[in-house]
Amino acid sequence: MTTRLETEIFEQPQTLQRLLEAESAHVADIAAAIRRAQPRYALIVARGTSDNAARYAQYTLGGLAGLFVGLATPSLTTIYESTPRFDGALVIGISQSGRSLEPTHVLEQAHDRGAVLTLSITNDASSPLAQVADHHIALNAGTELSLAATKTYTAQLLAIAMLVGHLGEVPGWETLVRRVPEWAAQTQELNAATRAAAARYTFMEHCVTLARGFNYCTGFEIALKLKELTYVAAEAYSSADF
Amino acid sequence: MTTRLETEIFEQPQTLQRLLEAESAHVADIAAAIRRAQPRYALIVARGTSDNAARYAQYTLGGLAGLFVGLATPSLTTIYESTPRFDGALVIGISQSGRSLEPTHVLEQAHDRGAVLTLSITNDASSPLAQVADHHIALNAGTELSLAATKTYTAQLLAIAMLVGHLGEVPGWETLVRRVPEWAAQTQELNAATRAAAARYTFMEHCVTLARGFNYCTGFEIALKLKELTYVAAEAYSSADF
Repeated sequence: MTTRLETEIFEQPQTLQRLLEAESAHVADIAAAIRRAQPRYALIVARGTSDNAARYAQYTLGGLAGLFVGLATPSLTTIYESTPRFDGALVIGISQSGRSLEPTHVLEQAHDRGAVLTLSITNDASSPLAQVADHHIALNAGTELSLAATKTYTAQLLAIAMLVGHLGEVPGWETLVRRVPEWAAQTQELNAATRAAAARYTFMEHCVTLARGFNYCTGFEIALKLKELTYVAAEAYSSADF
Repeated sequence: MTTRLETEIFEQPQTLQRLLEAESAHVADIAAAIRRAQPRYALIVARGTSDNAARYAQYTLGGLAGLFVGLATPSLTTIYESTPRFDGALVIGISQSGRSLEPTHVLEQAHDRGAVLTLSITNDASSPLAQVADHHIALNAGTELSLAATKTYTAQLLAIAMLVGHLGEVPGWETLVRRVPEWAAQTQELNAATRAAAARYTFMEHCVTLARGFNYCTGFEIALKLKELTYVAAEAYSSADF
């Protein structure tokens, strides 16, 4: 039986291809707008899976484009009703649906608090978070019917990689990025072998995921997926801390 | 039998009192220097327990002093040898011993990368991290002989609270801060009751700590202490995400 989750996982090569075709020129324009705005730093507001995509942006924008990225603590706004100053910042909101209240609320206030530019990344160009931002990247991943978002996560990473490629002028990045859908399809050919390998972990109760640097985010995302879908107590660590 | 850990826990009222006496005037000067430098944002480099103190700074400096605080990803520097720009930033390094390589390395580069001011918070004024920073807050907590730092954590929080009190002009903060040693002593009077209450968790294998906002950091710190000292699989969550 194929679950909705499995169907959505297998949509990834087409989803990623569609994102490249629909948004490449637009992301180039957004990168040019960011350069013109000369942000001092970036801050990202996101939760759950989107927060793991934010971690990817933190390492890649920081490491390849020289832009320091801080992750926002949105409960400052919602619990304490006290949003800090964002002087000179690029403020980015990431949300699958674009209907999360916190990123929308923070982006709405961002210019008043000193931000030089706002950007949102969502699946739905008509959502509040898409509407409130100066710029929006539409992931075009289609609605996620499964509780656990999968195709949206990889689309988020690809959108961020495109932005980083432009901003960091990473040599050869466009050729690499264009191959991502093909690599996703190759990974899915490993499905039968993965299923066989997973069998021995059927009764696993604890799990630690280890990753570092550009893959640190995906260590967290794997742990989150295990918790959401199997109730295994999974925890992500940096291999440097473990 | 009293363990080294217990001895150090019970040193907290005196440690906190000593910090207030030794560093209050100095922290006022540092706060004035930060105001003059007009940082656009702050970023903190720390690991482990000190990273939990950094989370406290993130919520309190952000919520009470309006200064956005991002937490650094030091492995960018150590794995990728690529430190982002820190234009207009206040860069803070926190380390119990002051001998952690990553904060020292990031603070060394901070001015070249655009930072307007650097500050370190350690237990040892002669340590490399203390020496490399423009300003240093000496916690005076004394050497931690136990593997798990306890008195240093609460001293870190108090030092940060003093800084936030000045920068945020929080009404009545000095009176409150002066009472912290007394409250620490009162908490320790609960020791026998705490020991009795802990008995039922002797065979606990999993644990979740829930906290939010200003206490989010201490949720993480309790989980870290449980993992370090009892090997319980403890995990901290924001009560908003759980």
